[in-house]
Amino acid sequence: MRIVSLMRLGDQEERLQEQFPELHFEFYKHPSCVPKESIEKMDILLSYHQEVNETFIKQATNLKWIMWYATGVNALPFETLKAQHIQVTNAKGVHAQQLAEFLFAFILDDYKEMKETFREQQSKIYNHKRTTPSVAGETILFLGTGVIPQRAAKIAQLFGMHTVGLNTSGHQVEGFNETYSIDEREKVLKKANVIVNLLPETGKTKYLLTRHDFECMNGQALFINLGRGTIVKESILIDVLKSNLIRKAYLDVYEQEPLKPESQLYNLNNVVMTSHITGNGDLNKKLATDIFINNLHHFLNKEPLNENVVDLNKGY
Amino acid sequence: MRIVSLMRLGDQEERLQEQFPELHFEFYKHPSCVPKESIEKMDILLSYHQEVNETFIKQATNLKWIMWYATGVNALPFETLKAQHIQVTNAKGVHAQQLAEFLFAFILDDYKEMKETFREQQSKIYNHKRTTPSVAGETILFLGTGVIPQRAAKIAQLFGMHTVGLNTSGHQVEGFNETYSIDEREKVLKKANVIVNLLPETGKTKYLLTRHDFECMNGQALFINLGRGTIVKESILIDVLKSNLIRKAYLDVYEQEPLKPESQLYNLNNVVMTSHITGNGDLNKKLATDIFINNLHHFLNKEPLNENVVDLNKGY
Repeated sequence: MRIVSLMRLGDQEERLQEQFPELHFEFYKHPSCVPKESIEKMDILLSYHQEVNETFIKQATNLKWIMWYATGVNALPFETLKAQHIQVTNAKGVHAQQLAEFLFAFILDDYKEMKETFREQQSKIYNHKRTTPSVAGETILFLGTGVIPQRAAKIAQLFGMHTVGLNTSGHQVEGFNETYSIDEREKVLKKANVIVNLLPETGKTKYLLTRHDFECMNGQALFINLGRGTIVKESILIDVLKSNLIRKAYLDVYEQEPLKPESQLYNLNNVVMTSHITGNGDLNKKLATDIFINNLHHFLNKEPLNENVVDLNKGY
Repeated sequence: MRIVSLMRLGDQEERLQEQFPELHFEFYKHPSCVPKESIEKMDILLSYHQEVNETFIKQATNLKWIMWYATGVNALPFETLKAQHIQVTNAKGVHAQQLAEFLFAFILDDYKEMKETFREQQSKIYNHKRTTPSVAGETILFLGTGVIPQRAAKIAQLFGMHTVGLNTSGHQVEGFNETYSIDEREKVLKKANVIVNLLPETGKTKYLLTRHDFECMNGQALFINLGRGTIVKESILIDVLKSNLIRKAYLDVYEQEPLKPESQLYNLNNVVMTSHITGNGDLNKKLATDIFINNLHHFLNKEPLNENVVDLNKGY
């Protein structure tokens, strides 16, 4: 059995080879380094690269399973995967910790006015009268109620925030004071002080947010996007920020990635940006490999994969 | 009965007057505005001003109770208060929310490398390989296990941190994975990644931390002081930061306040400073007045005060 990784996995390579000495592993630095023969003969693929497209998959005639070392699988060619009966699992949950940390780094950076702090320090100003707003009592609205929003919502509650979640059906989820279906969002957008997108990109979520959604917000809202940049067109977001339909945005993901230096987003003073890094963590490869190993035991026993199996019809 | 406030209380003034129409309230903008007669005749004093010193108290011959609209009472003349049988209550707990928010604003500002984020944004750099350290698994050591550290420790645990608390006897407290007495601190300083001082200033805590304490830290520690600046001499702290005995400090309180622009702290690049503002909040006056009103009912019924009574022998 041939297992091909399109990235180096550091100390996880040894771990895999020691734990499964009967299997043949190949680790490459980049998709472009993989010999044609390996693509044709591999049974299992480890990757998170955009090079895994329709052309690539059609060459992989022996492929049975892709372990995606990231959460968002939207770049994969679902129809081809279905036609070739290839299963997909992902690294959902691995990024929850880092994302939750960044989410509160962003919220508290804003509410505790950290930039103003640095300005005062640089100017040697001791202004002990300064009062910053509190997150307690604020309403935080999550687009998505999956593993990551749940984790973040529980922390938000401990900070005294009121948590609202949007999901497909509006079903209740632990950690959320209220939940609604995404279609009902108009009635909750206005009362949200912080709006966080953590939805995956699917046919249903791509360009979900329109200018009207931002017009429904209360003008003072903070919009934080840690999900996928395609939740809203960049041109609409720029217009929203220029028109001050919201107070400020913290963005980690963009409609087009990598974000080009020419993007008008760089010219706005009410946006803080990171480079799709909020899920990155030193432990991610280890945690994703934990998931892979758990599933690999099942695969070798000819049992169904049981952790983080992606529904190719839903796209997440 | 005459109740004198050395500060204006905004809408809380009306609230008090409406709720206690039989009492005589006086609200002044500053201690210097209070007539001598009011000082001599007042039964109850509301204040948090350093002007409430021995001389002031000796003039207040009718005074029975001081409601201190802050937490730290270390500036009060305890011996004079005891001699005149004056009770003190404080606003302990009112600042817990704001302090907890600032604590995590500081920790996450550091761990998520927010300054580096701003630098990249300004330079239009899209560096999607950047990985930031996670607070999960890190050990956070609290000097103090009172209301504020307890609240912060619970949030720290939800972020996956290991919480250690130091108090007088080493008794267990909810929210802390381990607790030790302050005298045993040498054995836990080394393993702490984040060290937070939230101790009040008392005879026992003034200048508690010596250079030796910082030498016992692991060299990579983050030191955060939200308690009282007098926990360590400024000269020692400057030496510690210059010698890189710790990685970085976030300071809100100082040995001498207000901090003078000449302080050498301003010249260091491994310190972030705020101006004793981390307890400030728009709701503080309301929350402290809640405590005052609760106690005032007891006072008027000639019952013992029952909320936030300061032990004048312990000094907190």
